[in-house]
Amino acid sequence: MIFLRKLFLILAFFCLISLTQAQVNNTFNLMPAPAALKLNSNRIGLDQRFRICVNGKANKRIYDYASRFIRRLSNKTGIFLDKLQYVTVKDSKDISSTLLIKIHRPGKLELGEDESYSLVTNAKQVIVESETDLGAIHALETLLQLLSSDANGYYFPGVEISDKPRFAWRGLLLDVVLHFMPVDVVKRTLDGMAVVKMNVLHLHLSNDQGFRVESKIFPRLQQVASDGIFYTQEEIRDIVRYADERGIRVVPEFVVPAHTTAILTAYPEYASVKRDYKLQRYFGVFDPVMDPTNEKLYPFLEKLFKEMSSLFPDDYFHIGGDENTGKDWENTPHIKSFMQSKGMKKYMDLQTYFNARLLPIIKKTGKIMMGWDEILQPGVPNEVVIQSWRGNESFYGSIKKGHKAILSYGYYIDLIQPASYHYLNDPMPDSVKLTDQEKKNILGGEATMWSEMITPVTVDSRIWPRTAAIAERLWSKQNVNNVDDMYRRLDIVSLHLESVGLQHLTYKDKLMRQLANGYDTKSLEVLVSVLEPLKIYERNEGDTMYTVFSPFTKLADVASPDQKLPRIFKKNVEEFLIQTSPQLEKSIHDELMIWKENDSEFKKLVVNSPVLEEAASLSENLSLIAAAGLESVQYLHDKKIPGETWLAQKMEIIKRAHKQGGRCEIQIIDTVQKLIEKAAGK
Amino acid sequence: MIFLRKLFLILAFFCLISLTQAQVNNTFNLMPAPAALKLNSNRIGLDQRFRICVNGKANKRIYDYASRFIRRLSNKTGIFLDKLQYVTVKDSKDISSTLLIKIHRPGKLELGEDESYSLVTNAKQVIVESETDLGAIHALETLLQLLSSDANGYYFPGVEISDKPRFAWRGLLLDVVLHFMPVDVVKRTLDGMAVVKMNVLHLHLSNDQGFRVESKIFPRLQQVASDGIFYTQEEIRDIVRYADERGIRVVPEFVVPAHTTAILTAYPEYASVKRDYKLQRYFGVFDPVMDPTNEKLYPFLEKLFKEMSSLFPDDYFHIGGDENTGKDWENTPHIKSFMQSKGMKKYMDLQTYFNARLLPIIKKTGKIMMGWDEILQPGVPNEVVIQSWRGNESFYGSIKKGHKAILSYGYYIDLIQPASYHYLNDPMPDSVKLTDQEKKNILGGEATMWSEMITPVTVDSRIWPRTAAIAERLWSKQNVNNVDDMYRRLDIVSLHLESVGLQHLTYKDKLMRQLANGYDTKSLEVLVSVLEPLKIYERNEGDTMYTVFSPFTKLADVASPDQKLPRIFKKNVEEFLIQTSPQLEKSIHDELMIWKENDSEFKKLVVNSPVLEEAASLSENLSLIAAAGLESVQYLHDKKIPGETWLAQKMEIIKRAHKQGGRCEIQIIDTVQKLIEKAAGK
Repeated sequence: MIFLRKLFLILAFFCLISLTQAQVNNTFNLMPAPAALKLNSNRIGLDQRFRICVNGKANKRIYDYASRFIRRLSNKTGIFLDKLQYVTVKDSKDISSTLLIKIHRPGKLELGEDESYSLVTNAKQVIVESETDLGAIHALETLLQLLSSDANGYYFPGVEISDKPRFAWRGLLLDVVLHFMPVDVVKRTLDGMAVVKMNVLHLHLSNDQGFRVESKIFPRLQQVASDGIFYTQEEIRDIVRYADERGIRVVPEFVVPAHTTAILTAYPEYASVKRDYKLQRYFGVFDPVMDPTNEKLYPFLEKLFKEMSSLFPDDYFHIGGDENTGKDWENTPHIKSFMQSKGMKKYMDLQTYFNARLLPIIKKTGKIMMGWDEILQPGVPNEVVIQSWRGNESFYGSIKKGHKAILSYGYYIDLIQPASYHYLNDPMPDSVKLTDQEKKNILGGEATMWSEMITPVTVDSRIWPRTAAIAERLWSKQNVNNVDDMYRRLDIVSLHLESVGLQHLTYKDKLMRQLANGYDTKSLEVLVSVLEPLKIYERNEGDTMYTVFSPFTKLADVASPDQKLPRIFKKNVEEFLIQTSPQLEKSIHDELMIWKENDSEFKKLVVNSPVLEEAASLSENLSLIAAAGLESVQYLHDKKIPGETWLAQKMEIIKRAHKQGGRCEIQIIDTVQKLIEKAAGK
Repeated sequence: MIFLRKLFLILAFFCLISLTQAQVNNTFNLMPAPAALKLNSNRIGLDQRFRICVNGKANKRIYDYASRFIRRLSNKTGIFLDKLQYVTVKDSKDISSTLLIKIHRPGKLELGEDESYSLVTNAKQVIVESETDLGAIHALETLLQLLSSDANGYYFPGVEISDKPRFAWRGLLLDVVLHFMPVDVVKRTLDGMAVVKMNVLHLHLSNDQGFRVESKIFPRLQQVASDGIFYTQEEIRDIVRYADERGIRVVPEFVVPAHTTAILTAYPEYASVKRDYKLQRYFGVFDPVMDPTNEKLYPFLEKLFKEMSSLFPDDYFHIGGDENTGKDWENTPHIKSFMQSKGMKKYMDLQTYFNARLLPIIKKTGKIMMGWDEILQPGVPNEVVIQSWRGNESFYGSIKKGHKAILSYGYYIDLIQPASYHYLNDPMPDSVKLTDQEKKNILGGEATMWSEMITPVTVDSRIWPRTAAIAERLWSKQNVNNVDDMYRRLDIVSLHLESVGLQHLTYKDKLMRQLANGYDTKSLEVLVSVLEPLKIYERNEGDTMYTVFSPFTKLADVASPDQKLPRIFKKNVEEFLIQTSPQLEKSIHDELMIWKENDSEFKKLVVNSPVLEEAASLSENLSLIAAAGLESVQYLHDKKIPGETWLAQKMEIIKRAHKQGGRCEIQIIDTVQKLIEKAAGK
């Protein structure tokens, strides 16, 4: 990938020249940035003599992690670290080990457990000290990110780090219903989360399109309501174990009473309306809903949730509760009568009744109930935890009512917004006045990976690396908020994420080769490098363009969020417009030339690959706006100002370029518009 | 990847210009080539109206396969094939479906089942007819490979195909012991096998380094003898089900009596010699062996093999039997006495005794016993099937003794030999005189993917695409043996293999990004494109360079077998030496220039990435031989002949270039040598 390659080079230089600034920021090459970091002049070289000593009251988790740490270190450096007894247990004065890990007590994998650690390089050793092994595994990830090299080989630089998370709940919701994600996808997602110190995997396990966990009590759930794609209970236990080994809690979500088409397909007797229920193939909000007036519903849910909650050792159990249209309640006589008899005025009163019935059921299993914003109605007890997706008002509303809450509004990574947007979305900004108790009730946040538009092939590119920016927001201090520095480190962490098995970088070439049908992918690469998929909910026009069976192997799937090239081009143009320089002019000119000339090559590709026809207009528009950009640069170079007709023509081109194709949009239009306007003296 | 890209383009042109020749060969773009193929002028366009009708006595396998076929077709073309009732059951006269599949009876997944099919495009439909659904699923793979496109869109070309396999056993051995392969790797391997119509996955499940299946009767096998990496019984059933859905048998192998360090680590009481058994970390042939004189061994093996064979529905059960050093028998007094008392002269007589005791145990489970060459000793009954790895003599020897046998000699894909070598290795060449019955006893062959030097990251690149050439050897007629045409189609099938999830193309960029440590990978790409890992068993020097814990993320892992660029360069040079042309000269010159100039860039990379230091000499040598090649081209161009000193100098460079580095060797040395010798008038 020509462009990526060029950018990596730029990045590498940037790393070097901006080190001093990074030191000031306490970010170094680390993401998330630690709470406190000082550099010292020590240097611990890495060679075959490397060994780890674990000391103190640790549990198995740290030994396994240390062993995997060794393998990763070996894979990164090519050094054979295999002929030694590398993880040993000795006293805290051991000076023969390269890395000494001191742990005070075994960590409990639960909300609020101590995850802090210190990491100090002295003249002979790296010393990690932590209250629990959970802190120590974070330290090992930090250490992997610290690994440096020069002509003398690999080494750990001299540092003094003292680190702990700002928020205790740093989660990622993975929706495995709308598109199923096999166990290996979940596992590599967990590996990625561990790299950036996230500690909650929220699995969204049932919705209108399917029920994704084997039930031994209600087997129709997987037999009739899953299309045969679900996790067996053994697989769930495997996922939970894998997460535990990485210090990550797994919180399950089974949505009720709405978003239950799948459950009602298997067990229609619990529906509000008699219908021929079938698994939903579209995405969106639908009417099917359970009947809270049916007394048999509660024993059913009690059995089901008891079985499901037994698979997940975590304290929290998420019952969804979102997006009930209420229509199936309001249009059903016996439910209407029930509401009247209880003095309920709107359908949400009935949902509150349902939740009140559900709460003791959840509590009986020993769990704390949580749900989305919608469950927060008058009368809901404070012990219920709120996950907020509807906005800050909703979030701080629940906090002020005395609920514990986690923020997801602003972290909807399925909406294809740039990392910078999510990065600056602080759960506890200075602008909101909160008491100390209220602050404590802000548990943290969760990125949400809804899977309407993703498959196992593309999911990594939708989660990573952007989610690393959210992980930093939730871990690091509030004042770590320099967007440029975040993007600098995001490129570095992206490679760390790839090294644990994530496919966010490799999937592109793969899909492009398929799209190009065996022909040269170069012109496709050039085009894709300036495209992003349509954002927010625009891509799925009218909510009916796509179904669960649609192909997600097309242009909008190859195009990824937050493209780097348009971002750098924008930066260059902005600088150029303030202060021209021959180098900047040349760089901008060369980039525009590539875009301008790409269309003729791309046209040849389309002939051989009809799937790319949808991109023909995008490619043409890219060529036209690039040409307009080139003319602008020339006018600016010549210090001549073109006439109004020229400007009008160019603005027409800009306008047309906003026309989308292939569910994508070109990302350099606004930047070129700035060039045009400047050239025209505006 | 600049070079790959250029090569795809070359390939694409080659496809077009050589179509006529390919038609003559009956190969078209298909791999394996069908038994008979004619083209006709029909054309079935592909659009949203596409639908499949399955008719006749089929089983579930074909409906599931047809559904997945639709998804793959949709993913390849981007056409939304999701809003229709696409797989229906109608009578055989249905003319509304685009694809009509007629099946006579449900297929049994067993050796020798009818896998034939016909595929005919008439004016309105594609019609597939087959005796069993196993034939029909092969037809669907053929149809996916037939899918074509032009400016008018996607279509199935007019064909009349009549196809059936030459051999009934077309297998791949996957060793999951020396390096474990998680379930998702096994599944994508099965997907790849289905693409090229292979029908046996031979799982090598126990060896000195581990025992890889959960045993409920002997749990120490997974607890003590697996490092915690093994398949649960549920996972085995999942793999077997997944394979069945693709018409692939799964044959398990549990090696006895040697290669049993793992079993003896868990149950040392069955060893010939009392020792502190620990899992073997090295690769090779070791002394530990079971004690055939211990009567308790046989009930143990009976229970174990009964449990293991119950997990695999296939008729065949592989007991290994290879590479017994015999030392632990010959050096143990009670075993020595036992042998003497039975009149056994050499340790292999004792192994024959052991096998004779084992045979009824295997038969009791309802299975047919098979093993490697070594088990074929005097007195072994004909019912035992031989897998031959030691050479043709061994193979035809067992055939002539009346055994059924499969060939693996010549299909050892772990030895990094080119596809052409495997391709021309025919199990039934004309040179061997066999009776009709003997011919029938040649069941087929198996590629063997031993996993000493591979991991889940690199495994696909070691199996694919080369194994597709072996698949063709086992499926297609003997006279389909044009190497150039095979390589032409291998590039095409390689993309089909990628589209089902294989990572043989994507893993390179991933590992190169890691090796380049965030810097530009271009110079590494240039170097790697002419490198192959050391072949045969050379890479693992003295069998002790690598262990199961070694890093397999280095230069020799990025370098893949059977590199295309050196092959094309060689072809170009050979043509050039027969008949020069300005175009050829320019092409050769340009390639040599890239290689010559690469070293200075590569040197910069090494400074930042010490892991690449091992490649420094390779890069330098590449530069020097490329320079020598350029001089040669210049002499030839100028029609001047250099002196003997020049030749001697250049031959010295050639000699030095053979010096290896990073467990790799440069692949263009011999070709440049030809240029030098020609220039020197030799």
